[in-house]
Amino acid sequence: MIGFGLIGAGRIGQLHAENIVSNPRARLVTVSDVFADAAQTLADKTGAVVSSVEEMLARDDVQAVFVASSTDTHAGFIEAGVRAGKAVFCEKPVDMDAGRIRDCLKVVDASGQPLMIGFNRRFDPNFSALQKRLSAGEIGEVEIVTIQSRDPAPPPVSYISRSGGLFRDMMIHDLDMARFLLGEEPVSVYATGSALVDPAIGAAGDIDTAIAVLKTASGKVCQISNSRRASYGYDQRIEVHGSKGMLRAGNVHETTVEVATCDGFRADPVQHFFLERYSAAYRDELNAFIDVVEAKNAPAPSGYDGLMAQVLADAATESLMTGLPVTL
Amino acid sequence: MIGFGLIGAGRIGQLHAENIVSNPRARLVTVSDVFADAAQTLADKTGAVVSSVEEMLARDDVQAVFVASSTDTHAGFIEAGVRAGKAVFCEKPVDMDAGRIRDCLKVVDASGQPLMIGFNRRFDPNFSALQKRLSAGEIGEVEIVTIQSRDPAPPPVSYISRSGGLFRDMMIHDLDMARFLLGEEPVSVYATGSALVDPAIGAAGDIDTAIAVLKTASGKVCQISNSRRASYGYDQRIEVHGSKGMLRAGNVHETTVEVATCDGFRADPVQHFFLERYSAAYRDELNAFIDVVEAKNAPAPSGYDGLMAQVLADAATESLMTGLPVTL
Amino acid sequence: MIGFGLIGAGRIGQLHAENIVSNPRARLVTVSDVFADAAQTLADKTGAVVSSVEEMLARDDVQAVFVASSTDTHAGFIEAGVRAGKAVFCEKPVDMDAGRIRDCLKVVDASGQPLMIGFNRRFDPNFSALQKRLSAGEIGEVEIVTIQSRDPAPPPVSYISRSGGLFRDMMIHDLDMARFLLGEEPVSVYATGSALVDPAIGAAGDIDTAIAVLKTASGKVCQISNSRRASYGYDQRIEVHGSKGMLRAGNVHETTVEVATCDGFRADPVQHFFLERYSAAYRDELNAFIDVVEAKNAPAPSGYDGLMAQVLADAATESLMTGLPVTL
Amino acid sequence: MIGFGLIGAGRIGQLHAENIVSNPRARLVTVSDVFADAAQTLADKTGAVVSSVEEMLARDDVQAVFVASSTDTHAGFIEAGVRAGKAVFCEKPVDMDAGRIRDCLKVVDASGQPLMIGFNRRFDPNFSALQKRLSAGEIGEVEIVTIQSRDPAPPPVSYISRSGGLFRDMMIHDLDMARFLLGEEPVSVYATGSALVDPAIGAAGDIDTAIAVLKTASGKVCQISNSRRASYGYDQRIEVHGSKGMLRAGNVHETTVEVATCDGFRADPVQHFFLERYSAAYRDELNAFIDVVEAKNAPAPSGYDGLMAQVLADAATESLMTGLPVTL
Repeated sequence: MIGFGLIGAGRIGQLHAENIVSNPRARLVTVSDVFADAAQTLADKTGAVVSSVEEMLARDDVQAVFVASSTDTHAGFIEAGVRAGKAVFCEKPVDMDAGRIRDCLKVVDASGQPLMIGFNRRFDPNFSALQKRLSAGEIGEVEIVTIQSRDPAPPPVSYISRSGGLFRDMMIHDLDMARFLLGEEPVSVYATGSALVDPAIGAAGDIDTAIAVLKTASGKVCQISNSRRASYGYDQRIEVHGSKGMLRAGNVHETTVEVATCDGFRADPVQHFFLERYSAAYRDELNAFIDVVEAKNAPAPSGYDGLMAQVLADAATESLMTGLPVTL
Repeated sequence: MIGFGLIGAGRIGQLHAENIVSNPRARLVTVSDVFADAAQTLADKTGAVVSSVEEMLARDDVQAVFVASSTDTHAGFIEAGVRAGKAVFCEKPVDMDAGRIRDCLKVVDASGQPLMIGFNRRFDPNFSALQKRLSAGEIGEVEIVTIQSRDPAPPPVSYISRSGGLFRDMMIHDLDMARFLLGEEPVSVYATGSALVDPAIGAAGDIDTAIAVLKTASGKVCQISNSRRASYGYDQRIEVHGSKGMLRAGNVHETTVEVATCDGFRADPVQHFFLERYSAAYRDELNAFIDVVEAKNAPAPSGYDGLMAQVLADAATESLMTGLPVTL
Repeated sequence: MIGFGLIGAGRIGQLHAENIVSNPRARLVTVSDVFADAAQTLADKTGAVVSSVEEMLARDDVQAVFVASSTDTHAGFIEAGVRAGKAVFCEKPVDMDAGRIRDCLKVVDASGQPLMIGFNRRFDPNFSALQKRLSAGEIGEVEIVTIQSRDPAPPPVSYISRSGGLFRDMMIHDLDMARFLLGEEPVSVYATGSALVDPAIGAAGDIDTAIAVLKTASGKVCQISNSRRASYGYDQRIEVHGSKGMLRAGNVHETTVEVATCDGFRADPVQHFFLERYSAAYRDELNAFIDVVEAKNAPAPSGYDGLMAQVLADAATESLMTGLPVTL
Repeated sequence: MIGFGLIGAGRIGQLHAENIVSNPRARLVTVSDVFADAAQTLADKTGAVVSSVEEMLARDDVQAVFVASSTDTHAGFIEAGVRAGKAVFCEKPVDMDAGRIRDCLKVVDASGQPLMIGFNRRFDPNFSALQKRLSAGEIGEVEIVTIQSRDPAPPPVSYISRSGGLFRDMMIHDLDMARFLLGEEPVSVYATGSALVDPAIGAAGDIDTAIAVLKTASGKVCQISNSRRASYGYDQRIEVHGSKGMLRAGNVHETTVEVATCDGFRADPVQHFFLERYSAAYRDELNAFIDVVEAKNAPAPSGYDGLMAQVLADAATESLMTGLPVTL
């Protein structure tokens, strides 16, 4: 049974805490948060104790650290964690600055400790099954990857203005998914977009509607589209066209109920909330990390995956700004 | 090229005329109808000549006769046709009276001429493909056949009161389909129903909502449900459960367009009109009959199939009346 | 927080225990089982204590009793539970004998304690949503109910031979669903069936393939089909045809992945295991029972629902034996 | 009844001839082809006479000319046709050179005769219905258009090498569709691609796999992907994401049959042949042109639409060559 320390008791930290508590291979030992009340509330609910990060890292009964604090603290906690001999799981992104990520990964490498990054969508049972079947050659060689990704509604503009922009905040998940599916590094990125959903997003210097095109050295192509709005739910679809066929994975409707009337056949909207859509993904992600801690598997997505997603998001941002494709 | 005589220039006769005219293996020679105007209009449109049935049957350039007149004249025209040495296609039913059908089939047998019955649904490309795959053993042995069959709206009560009742007028198509799919004769029939769509149908002594259950000697079972009303289109679905899986065939939507909004995902209604739904079936049925006339195939559905569908419809009607299953 | 005593630590008892433990409104106080080891294992896992039923019923901190023991003990434990002033939840069926159920319900009524019966499918989020929308009049008046229910594979013949037969063991769930959806009591039942899946089932005096037809006083009809085998998963579908349209609810596929090749478009099988398919249903069922214990709602499905499902199963069994419909 | 002259008796000319012959508002008067035999065969089949183009244009009983000859002759025949006072329908493209198209359109404008271009997909009942509903505001303002378009198999390399390249030969249909759906002219085009399907296509200087991104002045975006290969049929899908929802239109499967086994649920491939997929589109296109000839409607797609599609295809080709987006 792996003892966990959790840094960050916000929404996503609470989710991870719940999964750790109900996982028979894990137990939650300590919780740390800059807001003492948040840490205490979560500790009370889970039977963990509140501690500082320093105390957490000093404990022998903590083998693994979950970093779910604010983005600017990620790299520092990763470094402290691995230096203390802990396996570390960190929510994406490692850092907004690719140079800082590179430095952090050097510390990780030197430590010999594993680092896994929270690109949760790789663990969605639908996307995960698709990727496995793709890897098994079910549709031959990958040729075109299409990723449609749309949020039900935009976050507050106050959030957007410190988010690093749509490519770093939202499309980064799709950029990681593209790498996961292409099986090859992109060598060029072109991106464009607009503020169509809310002019205030444009006024804040960001976009809410975007398309990116990636190409690999061997000529595989990938198109990603993002919107900050989708009336019909949280829309996350993948389609891979290969030399022998097509694999795709879609959304889950709220129920399987369908009504047929003179207006036609109507199915439910798709699940609206990402915590509902990806609840199984978060559980499977935890199990994958426990396998890593138990040295059964190498970490995947790794720190390098975290770096590359950020590099692609930076390139897409640059492409949007310059209007030109970026070569990697 | 087969020369055709057409008896009956009503809606269904006009459809067959159009198919004959556009079939490169067929030509329409003469048209006959008790309403001279209807015959003339159709003849003008198709380049055929108007004639009496007697004249039609006397012509050497007529090798095949299409009977699409009123039900009470079917058996007589079949007999006259085969006696005149013509191949005969007759719309269902041969007659409302099973005894009369038996007599008619004796005349057909004695003549050596082929008789094919217009159970058009066997030629629907979807149902036909399903039956072929079933026969090829794709799902092993048939165990449960489910047929859902619903009209968009009931016919006028005036029609219903001389229709022979729902089982003989509407479910007869499904009873033929059941035999087509079961691959074995039913040995018992239980049927029940109600007038739920329109009380006037009940007042006319008929029902508009029905269920029938058939069972064969080896224990295969079949359930059929009928309604005279379906707001969402002309609903005709088949499902066969077998020892190794399930085969089903469904409806065709008006278009493939789907809209997704906060109310969910909405597809079009299914095609409303039976002539639209079964337009390909009528064309394929004609080709199948031409094959019969050219002696390439035995007629199917045959006169015997016409008889057995009527026998099953009679049994279902008796079951409804008595409240008891009928053994065949 | 409601304190629960659980009688029966088998597969279904373990499931309920797990749900009670993770429900914030409930806690599991004691576990009882005729097999002491089973009780102890479950108690160890859940933090409950092992006790006899007598001890359980004597405890003040047990407000509600879950009966998940073998069928022949249900009625007795229900009576003991309500006499001890406990709210009782009992897995279906109350008893194999309708007379015994009636006697038991008298004891329940006299006690003033609530009794809820475990027809879990009413709580499936899909079927539950369908029924709510039906009740809200979304498709007008109910006319035809179609229930397709197929198990992935038959249970051992040893189980079947003491199961009371397919209608009482398997179709009873669908008969309850039929009542739930028809909104009116059936007044006649016709049933037929065969042993097609396994001759050993026939040799044991039972069937594995069945159809039943129900009719209510106002003429609504219902068809139910059952098979003990379905290669493609645990198949549970409902379709209700009403005066204004159709509502249906289907299965959940294992993933949303679809592959398209020259062989066509292939989706996953549907979930195979009833505990997976109905996991949300069991959780919602528990919440519904807690509402009952807290006197927020009357129990539904009630003891009367348990009785009526058994009466219908008895009638279907009689119909199969006699070959005649049974009037209720 | 409109009298038609047809220039070009090849595969697509034959299709138009067949549609003209069976359209009650049209009759085929003359056929012309550089291959006299092809013209004669088609004339014999349709009851038309063979003539030179000059003779055709001189006839009073020819009101409309269908140009279905080789691409390099289109512009000349359009000019000759309108100068002779005929309404002209021309298969896409008007010419491979946008400058030549501009000159041709000046002649058309000066003549006062209508010119309609054969972008048949606008008349596909599915895409046409989608566009009408889009125009009616069903999903608010257009934000993202996604067009997936894949041929079952590549044409011979000999064809490809004189085709003008994938963007002018294949994607031109999708570029026209993009304009049809965006409701606004694109102001920038970025395109990329590879030869993944067949190295011989790459050796011939073309690609077989491509993505293009368009953007309009108001910021609407469009992504188009093309492949010359799709094992599962002729794949043509459209999806429009708008401010209030999403509209999409898909493929038509060969039948509605579905089989379920332990391997999952399998539907048919989609229709493989473009003449099958777009047969209704070609018929509706003819009716639209007859409306134009009868002065009921302005021509749509117009010569200007033909020009703009070519301009976009040129821009996409330039973008592929330079690796840079092209501003229009």
